[in-house]
Amino acid sequence: MIKRVETGIPGMDEILHGGIPERNVVLLSGGPGTGKTIFSQQFLWNGLQKGEPGIYVALEEHPVQIRQNMAQFGWDIRPYEDQGMFAMVDAFTAGIGRSREYEKYIVHDLTDLREFIDVLRQAIKDIDAKRVVVDSVTTLYINKPAIARSIILQLKRVLAGTGCTSIFVSQISVGERGFGGPGVEHGVDGIIRLDLDEIDGELKRSLTVWKMRGTSHSMRRHPFDITDKGIIVYANKILKRGGIVEI
Amino acid sequence: MIKRVETGIPGMDEILHGGIPERNVVLLSGGPGTGKTIFSQQFLWNGLQKGEPGIYVALEEHPVQIRQNMAQFGWDIRPYEDQGMFAMVDAFTAGIGRSREYEKYIVHDLTDLREFIDVLRQAIKDIDAKRVVVDSVTTLYINKPAIARSIILQLKRVLAGTGCTSIFVSQISVGERGFGGPGVEHGVDGIIRLDLDEIDGELKRSLTVWKMRGTSHSMRRHPFDITDKGIIVYANKILKRGGIVEI
Amino acid sequence: MIKRVETGIPGMDEILHGGIPERNVVLLSGGPGTGKTIFSQQFLWNGLQKGEPGIYVALEEHPVQIRQNMAQFGWDIRPYEDQGMFAMVDAFTAGIGRSREYEKYIVHDLTDLREFIDVLRQAIKDIDAKRVVVDSVTTLYINKPAIARSIILQLKRVLAGTGCTSIFVSQISVGERGFGGPGVEHGVDGIIRLDLDEIDGELKRSLTVWKMRGTSHSMRRHPFDITDKGIIVYANKILKRGGIVEI
Amino acid sequence: MIKRVETGIPGMDEILHGGIPERNVVLLSGGPGTGKTIFSQQFLWNGLQKGEPGIYVALEEHPVQIRQNMAQFGWDIRPYEDQGMFAMVDAFTAGIGRSREYEKYIVHDLTDLREFIDVLRQAIKDIDAKRVVVDSVTTLYINKPAIARSIILQLKRVLAGTGCTSIFVSQISVGERGFGGPGVEHGVDGIIRLDLDEIDGELKRSLTVWKMRGTSHSMRRHPFDITDKGIIVYANKILKRGGIVEI
Amino acid sequence: MIKRVETGIPGMDEILHGGIPERNVVLLSGGPGTGKTIFSQQFLWNGLQKGEPGIYVALEEHPVQIRQNMAQFGWDIRPYEDQGMFAMVDAFTAGIGRSREYEKYIVHDLTDLREFIDVLRQAIKDIDAKRVVVDSVTTLYINKPAIARSIILQLKRVLAGTGCTSIFVSQISVGERGFGGPGVEHGVDGIIRLDLDEIDGELKRSLTVWKMRGTSHSMRRHPFDITDKGIIVYANKILKRGGIVEI
Amino acid sequence: MIKRVETGIPGMDEILHGGIPERNVVLLSGGPGTGKTIFSQQFLWNGLQKGEPGIYVALEEHPVQIRQNMAQFGWDIRPYEDQGMFAMVDAFTAGIGRSREYEKYIVHDLTDLREFIDVLRQAIKDIDAKRVVVDSVTTLYINKPAIARSIILQLKRVLAGTGCTSIFVSQISVGERGFGGPGVEHGVDGIIRLDLDEIDGELKRSLTVWKMRGTSHSMRRHPFDITDKGIIVYANKILKRGGIVEI
Repeated sequence: MIKRVETGIPGMDEILHGGIPERNVVLLSGGPGTGKTIFSQQFLWNGLQKGEPGIYVALEEHPVQIRQNMAQFGWDIRPYEDQGMFAMVDAFTAGIGRSREYEKYIVHDLTDLREFIDVLRQAIKDIDAKRVVVDSVTTLYINKPAIARSIILQLKRVLAGTGCTSIFVSQISVGERGFGGPGVEHGVDGIIRLDLDEIDGELKRSLTVWKMRGTSHSMRRHPFDITDKGIIVYANKILKRGGIVEI
Repeated sequence: MIKRVETGIPGMDEILHGGIPERNVVLLSGGPGTGKTIFSQQFLWNGLQKGEPGIYVALEEHPVQIRQNMAQFGWDIRPYEDQGMFAMVDAFTAGIGRSREYEKYIVHDLTDLREFIDVLRQAIKDIDAKRVVVDSVTTLYINKPAIARSIILQLKRVLAGTGCTSIFVSQISVGERGFGGPGVEHGVDGIIRLDLDEIDGELKRSLTVWKMRGTSHSMRRHPFDITDKGIIVYANKILKRGGIVEI
Repeated sequence: MIKRVETGIPGMDEILHGGIPERNVVLLSGGPGTGKTIFSQQFLWNGLQKGEPGIYVALEEHPVQIRQNMAQFGWDIRPYEDQGMFAMVDAFTAGIGRSREYEKYIVHDLTDLREFIDVLRQAIKDIDAKRVVVDSVTTLYINKPAIARSIILQLKRVLAGTGCTSIFVSQISVGERGFGGPGVEHGVDGIIRLDLDEIDGELKRSLTVWKMRGTSHSMRRHPFDITDKGIIVYANKILKRGGIVEI
Repeated sequence: MIKRVETGIPGMDEILHGGIPERNVVLLSGGPGTGKTIFSQQFLWNGLQKGEPGIYVALEEHPVQIRQNMAQFGWDIRPYEDQGMFAMVDAFTAGIGRSREYEKYIVHDLTDLREFIDVLRQAIKDIDAKRVVVDSVTTLYINKPAIARSIILQLKRVLAGTGCTSIFVSQISVGERGFGGPGVEHGVDGIIRLDLDEIDGELKRSLTVWKMRGTSHSMRRHPFDITDKGIIVYANKILKRGGIVEI
Repeated sequence: MIKRVETGIPGMDEILHGGIPERNVVLLSGGPGTGKTIFSQQFLWNGLQKGEPGIYVALEEHPVQIRQNMAQFGWDIRPYEDQGMFAMVDAFTAGIGRSREYEKYIVHDLTDLREFIDVLRQAIKDIDAKRVVVDSVTTLYINKPAIARSIILQLKRVLAGTGCTSIFVSQISVGERGFGGPGVEHGVDGIIRLDLDEIDGELKRSLTVWKMRGTSHSMRRHPFDITDKGIIVYANKILKRGGIVEI
Repeated sequence: MIKRVETGIPGMDEILHGGIPERNVVLLSGGPGTGKTIFSQQFLWNGLQKGEPGIYVALEEHPVQIRQNMAQFGWDIRPYEDQGMFAMVDAFTAGIGRSREYEKYIVHDLTDLREFIDVLRQAIKDIDAKRVVVDSVTTLYINKPAIARSIILQLKRVLAGTGCTSIFVSQISVGERGFGGPGVEHGVDGIIRLDLDEIDGELKRSLTVWKMRGTSHSMRRHPFDITDKGIIVYANKILKRGGIVEI
């Protein structure tokens, strides 16, 4: 009965018991170097392969750099942009420099959430987007924690209305236990946490689905790798204190 | 002698030695993804099955979305709304958009507690409510911790006067030890805490009744599951450090 | 030589080596659900049974509710109020509503400590009180920690002058190590701490006398229960990490 | 060569390798109920028995109450006050009430350190004091941590000039690791810490000399008791994690 | 396909699977005494040996002192400065004293990021720099954590445009878990962390590559030494809790 | 090649592989009672025995008291002051009282760093000082942590110009992990930390060289004693968790 959006990331849909329920807003939370951006780009790319248009809202990196980074994993989004199946929202350059000539969707003032929402809504409408990534939402309320919750709720309301399934990248500090602040955590439909922990001299990557409205899901911490083809999640392994074990 | 309101949640009334004492205001406290909203909706639905009218005050989610979410568990409240046995108080949309046409009870300004109380009181009176859920009270004093206690006490005074039994959903952070701040915790009649903890690579759900005025209750941490029919609490099991054990 | 006031709570006077030294101001400190209010009401009720008039200063709960709560334990204070042996000081309703008609001692403005002291002093004088409970003192300086010490000292000075023996209920957070702040802890004559701790899936109640001017006392953590007759302290048992042991 | 002031507290001078070096200002630091006041009163009383005049600066308790408390340990200071060998500095009542008639040395305004110092200096001069106790210095800078260091240094300068040996009582919170703040700790000549710790269900008292200018001293944590004759320190025992052991 | 810049530090390029990907901005993060400055100077010196011009932006130490410090490791940069292959940007003296006569690139006002960027850009252009070290970036936003992220992003944008590969030295406190604050950590392409930890009475140096865009890398904590020839990293050893082990 | 200044403290120069490199500014960091002042006075006294003039900047204690304290260890500096080989900079009394008649170098206003530097520079010039102790630098930026780094850098610049080797005493709190704040720790050439820890009922002294520019040094935690001749460091012993072991 419930429709799902497959992430296409190896192992991930198994963990989600079929994929992310449609229209859910999912917080993808992790410290530096945990693979949040790769995960969310892979989610969009896999959507394109299934014919589902997608939008990447760039708040952390120059759009040109993002296209190059994706290409390194074999995800060349240029043709999809030309076909109107992929849109980059440039919320990074503020339209300064040559981006004005190249980028179609530019947010000029990040302190004005209405402009942000208008540009995003227009991009969604233009390409009839099914998937949206905001990388990162943290940038929208950095230094303004008191309004984080309100921003999350406004974005969620807009995206819910469009029928998109969304990933909000949330940056947290190393060692921080939560997912980006209480207001944010309680406002979203799902939470996926990426971890990078040192265990006795070795860095280990793992992933946990903390909540996901509308579906059951794995209740375990799964190890994953970042390869030159993107992320591979091991749905049949658990990261325990003593190391990785088969289920 | 003391009257009780049965939650109807499997296992829960056994833990409460018969149910929540009538007129109690119970804080239902938990981190993101612990099942607070499902618990409180199940409490209302079970009341409706026993002929007890109920009210859901929506502060976190769009009323339309809430009705859909409940329906996913088989709890279709629309007929009860039509019969005047269930009322939704919309403290989420502020009456913006089409909710003005559909919702009967709308709070326009959350900073005005008097309006909030007036609307709630009217709804209670209209349907002669016996059960009330406020999801979440945290929203009422987010960014204003200094007045949390005062808000809780004012709400409690109003609800005590009406004879309703109430659940106040309290959002806490992951890893936070308390239940939502000292002022809140000491102001209520009961505290039920929902937990979601990672124990060596596995997420475990558990529930503890921390206090309940007017009744004795289980003094143990009980595991529970969220199924597609709602919550099932295991009154005959305890979650210990070493895992779940039968009593 | 030193006069003592017996609490009458089973096991408690044994722990106190005979009772609370007369005129002492005792801080009764504990988190939510630890039984502070029941302890202090039982202290007053037992005083009444011995012919010692007592006063309950209500800062957290409606006086009507308090009378009902006490009655549930079999402590019906109405007849004692009528005989002028018990007085309720209503510092909760501010005289709003029908309490003005029913309550004799009302504090209208909690920010005015002088009014509070005047009303309390009048009540003490009227019934020649020997025991006083302030439930809770925390309410008097919530959001104003800087003046907590000064408020405690002023109250203590007044009560010392009247010859009463007093319990000041102090609300602390779950997991908080102290007793209500340094200014408060050092200002009182005695400290009794009530604890409610989860030990491997089970909630355990215990009580420790941390200090008591004018008497030696048990230096152990004693388990206690809340029954439908009130609190029972186990003077011959200790709560250790490994569980409860007989002494 | 170096002159010492014997505390006279059983076991204590052994720990100090003969007593406190003359003119030292010693911080006596501890949480609530650790015995700071008793220690410092015993220090003064023992001085009187050796013919050394002493001063008690009362900042926490009514002078009348202090005299009663001391008498409970058999330390009746009234005769010494009459002989001009003991002086009470009343920095508690501000001269309000009947203390004006009874107390000779009154500090009216605690925010005016100069008045405080003038009164103290006068009392020292009048009785030719050799020992001074300030109970507590914490009161002088509560809510003003930024000037704590400056107050300690000013007091130390005055007392150094008079040739007195002094104890400054410092109130700390339960569980606090330091001795009253960095500015204070580094400004004094010696630090003695009193502890009251719960070890597996039992409260244990212990004492450690953390520093003492001009002398070597025990580098161990010694258990002590509070008896009805005052404090007894066990110089030949150590409080270790596993319990108390003989040396 | 991807171009790399070899650090030339023994063992380091092995750990980086060939070197730092070209144009990356790498945060070199560590507490006091961990060897951050030596690492970054060695990186520049090794570049000079391969014919790659480099720039050292001095924010912590006098340029004259830096040249002397480098010479102690046998890294005499004077000849390279004369040949136009090395440039020192003096952001330390503000041009006060005799540095005005000797230094070519001086930043006069650190609060003006534009001047800083202009001077840096000019130096890069003049010597056609391939490697840049900013020691430390922390100085640029000390006391202004709210703008740390913005400063990092501006610098990164400028350096990305020039094609340089950069090391940003980040100073952290002893015991701090992160790398210099969330805004900083998420804004860079790579993070290398240097540690100096006491393990049972011995100080141990170790190094971990926490993230590095565009390449895989060792996921282990490697021990390293500081010798009189500079840093030597042990790519074939891991620092575990139990000590150093061969791989 | 590198010149060193021997501390002359038994065991210390062995740990420093020959002494402190000339011109280094060394932070001597420790909690109350750890022996910082004794260490730095011993450093100056030993310099005098080798014919190296020295300066003690007194910020914590009266100059008269300091001379007496030093004499207790057999370090009578008066003759050296008369010969112009030792200078006391009085930054304690502000020239109030009789110090104006006795002290030659007086800092009147600690909030004016320029006066401080002028007086210090004059003293250095007058006696051609080779060693300088500032006890403590913490006093210069207490309550002003934001400018700590700037003060350290200014002092360092002045002292570097004079060719002196310096010890900056840094006061930290008990249990604090760092050395006096990040700005301070990264600004100095060397860090020596003195510790006083309770290990199972016994206080243990130990010393660790955390960093020292221009030399290798012991990477171990060495126990030390304070005797009536000053400090003795045990270069051939390590303080481990299990106790002291021979190397």
